[in-house]
Amino acid sequence: MLHRKVIIAIADGIGDRPIAELDDKTPLEYADTPNLDRVASAGINGMMDPIAPGIPVGTDMGHLILFGYEPQDYPGRGPIEALGVGMEVQPGDIVLRCNYATVDSSGIVLDRRAGRIREGTDRIAETISGIEIDGVTFYLKSATEHRAVLVLRGTGLSDRIGDSDPKAPNDGSPYHKVKPLDDSDEAKRTAAVLNRFLQEAHRLLSRHPVNEARVQRGEKPANFILTRGVGRMTELTPISERLNIRGSCIAGESTVLGVAKLAGFKPVTDSRMTANMDTDIELKAELALRELADCDLVLVHMKAPDLKGHDNEPLEKAKAVELFDRLVGLLLRDMPEDAYLALAADHSTPCEVGEHSGEPVPIAICGPGIRKDRVLHYNECDGGYGGLGRLSGMDFVRTLHDLMGRVKKKGN
Amino acid sequence: MLHRKVIIAIADGIGDRPIAELDDKTPLEYADTPNLDRVASAGINGMMDPIAPGIPVGTDMGHLILFGYEPQDYPGRGPIEALGVGMEVQPGDIVLRCNYATVDSSGIVLDRRAGRIREGTDRIAETISGIEIDGVTFYLKSATEHRAVLVLRGTGLSDRIGDSDPKAPNDGSPYHKVKPLDDSDEAKRTAAVLNRFLQEAHRLLSRHPVNEARVQRGEKPANFILTRGVGRMTELTPISERLNIRGSCIAGESTVLGVAKLAGFKPVTDSRMTANMDTDIELKAELALRELADCDLVLVHMKAPDLKGHDNEPLEKAKAVELFDRLVGLLLRDMPEDAYLALAADHSTPCEVGEHSGEPVPIAICGPGIRKDRVLHYNECDGGYGGLGRLSGMDFVRTLHDLMGRVKKKGN
Repeated sequence: MLHRKVIIAIADGIGDRPIAELDDKTPLEYADTPNLDRVASAGINGMMDPIAPGIPVGTDMGHLILFGYEPQDYPGRGPIEALGVGMEVQPGDIVLRCNYATVDSSGIVLDRRAGRIREGTDRIAETISGIEIDGVTFYLKSATEHRAVLVLRGTGLSDRIGDSDPKAPNDGSPYHKVKPLDDSDEAKRTAAVLNRFLQEAHRLLSRHPVNEARVQRGEKPANFILTRGVGRMTELTPISERLNIRGSCIAGESTVLGVAKLAGFKPVTDSRMTANMDTDIELKAELALRELADCDLVLVHMKAPDLKGHDNEPLEKAKAVELFDRLVGLLLRDMPEDAYLALAADHSTPCEVGEHSGEPVPIAICGPGIRKDRVLHYNECDGGYGGLGRLSGMDFVRTLHDLMGRVKKKGN
Repeated sequence: MLHRKVIIAIADGIGDRPIAELDDKTPLEYADTPNLDRVASAGINGMMDPIAPGIPVGTDMGHLILFGYEPQDYPGRGPIEALGVGMEVQPGDIVLRCNYATVDSSGIVLDRRAGRIREGTDRIAETISGIEIDGVTFYLKSATEHRAVLVLRGTGLSDRIGDSDPKAPNDGSPYHKVKPLDDSDEAKRTAAVLNRFLQEAHRLLSRHPVNEARVQRGEKPANFILTRGVGRMTELTPISERLNIRGSCIAGESTVLGVAKLAGFKPVTDSRMTANMDTDIELKAELALRELADCDLVLVHMKAPDLKGHDNEPLEKAKAVELFDRLVGLLLRDMPEDAYLALAADHSTPCEVGEHSGEPVPIAICGPGIRKDRVLHYNECDGGYGGLGRLSGMDFVRTLHDLMGRVKKKGN
């Protein structure tokens, strides 16, 4: 079998809509993208729906699919975040995303982000991580700023529970008591032990030295843990194992790195990859090409286009696209001749929506023996005239795995 | 209901990739194909994935789908080969492909093909076919050269067993003892009786007159049976019965003829159909048109493009395509006016891969009332711009059955 290598360059949320202020072009059409167009011209193009037409996906789900899983493999955001921040998680663990928050004595949430606390969160986590209640051990790890991840490990647990996070923007809502979402004993038990843990954490945090110092400085104490994004870690065969390949992922964002670990890909990151406009694309390109020497499949991720879509900044989004174009130019310059370069995105984030939409994203593949089509530009319109047609994310990724010579034949 | 007839002309493995030595064209683009282009120009075109994008299929699976089955109907290669060589098989039978081989007294495989034995294999099969062990009857039938098919008939049998064929190219490996592949009593029993049969066959073949004569002539004796490709014959409703049609298949290859029998199609073959470049296309065209007089659906198969893809011979593959073009020209000349002619393939076999790939194949349909599109050429690029779009094999074949007026309305 002919085995070949692939780099997938992922522009998070790149898909958009025509915008009046950009002469009725999408940010991708408006931007100057000679390198993306080189890939389109030399390659085969199409449009990709991560799951199916009209279904918006989160960054975690979008990447789960780009790494080679199917939507039903999704373990929930919690487990992915846990892996992303370097926690060890086991099948069966219940995992939640958390915010350190400030609540008053009656439980009203005064600040969902505890004044965007930056310092001392590791000491806070240390104090309460490892607590055991009724046979369930709680592990807490702090992430960036006010964020943290909570793992519940024990028997008889369920992910069918609600959030303690009211998610309202500090409007005087109290935190929620965690409720079971079904009638099972497991859901009831999980909600009960988690509520006991949250109370115990509140008691310990209220008198924690980090918080006492904050209050003295007039800052908001991190005296409560708001939970959301619950998931149950599933038993998933890593994609690297399924395909018998070595994979690597270059990214600055913990969610993407979390999916990479789940998939058995080597997570490669650096503080110079900022998940924003000031990310170091030279470093990303260099690492992607270096990883490709040892690996079969490398994903290199850029977050900026998504951020500018969420912020409804079309011109800034076009600039983010040009940054992605330069990254792709660096890759093209030094790609090995017998490897494929693919362009993809996890989803669309139209500026006027400010959120992910279910519109498809353009895809392109260039490399040895590719069935070149007539498309000359990489964008949301031209992609519709490409030789790949309109594919689901699973079909697109399997197409790449097939070009790599890694998909088993059905029949004989 | 308007009932119409269809001929599907199948070019095995015709799909390929652009090749430098063919001016960066695929063999199909490079070849002179006025007749294929006539069908494309007069008809509607598209690209077909036998199962789904990026999934390579074997010839057996590819044809199973072209005859109208779904991938999950696949009974394994064994049963298809049995039907192809004219054995009678029943639902529940366990069927294996075999090689006559030469082993030494310690079980080392000296030649996986017993010196490509050609003569006397029917007498060998006669000697050991019909043996009964523990309520299981073994039927063996010789096919071309060193090939044979073995049927196990009895109760409590399973297809979850391994091969006795080590498949290594005569590198000093011993034959394998057949192992059960799961813990079921059925798998254990099947492996046990098959091992006893193989030993008994070895004992009988070692002193068989055909082999004694071979040894005297300095040739390798066919003293062992290597098994592989196990399958369990399933209870499948023939496609002809499902659609209430009469079908026929013109082919030189036993695998395709086996699928035809499974589907309830009349197998039509002749020694002048060689499954290679010297196949008699006049005869194929004549028989296809003659069969169409009595049938509703005729499949006519040409093997040569696949062979040239496996051998990585692009120019020869282009010649095989031109042979297919001439066959289609003969069909076009005498097609009844009210019948459809469809062009299809079972899978791609890119020369540079030398194996089946998961890339789609071009399809075209011309005939009465067809929704003509703007495509002028039958090839891997133009097909992507056709009115059929990108279809699965099941969708393509159902489209033909619908043009025949044979698909039941859903709802009322």
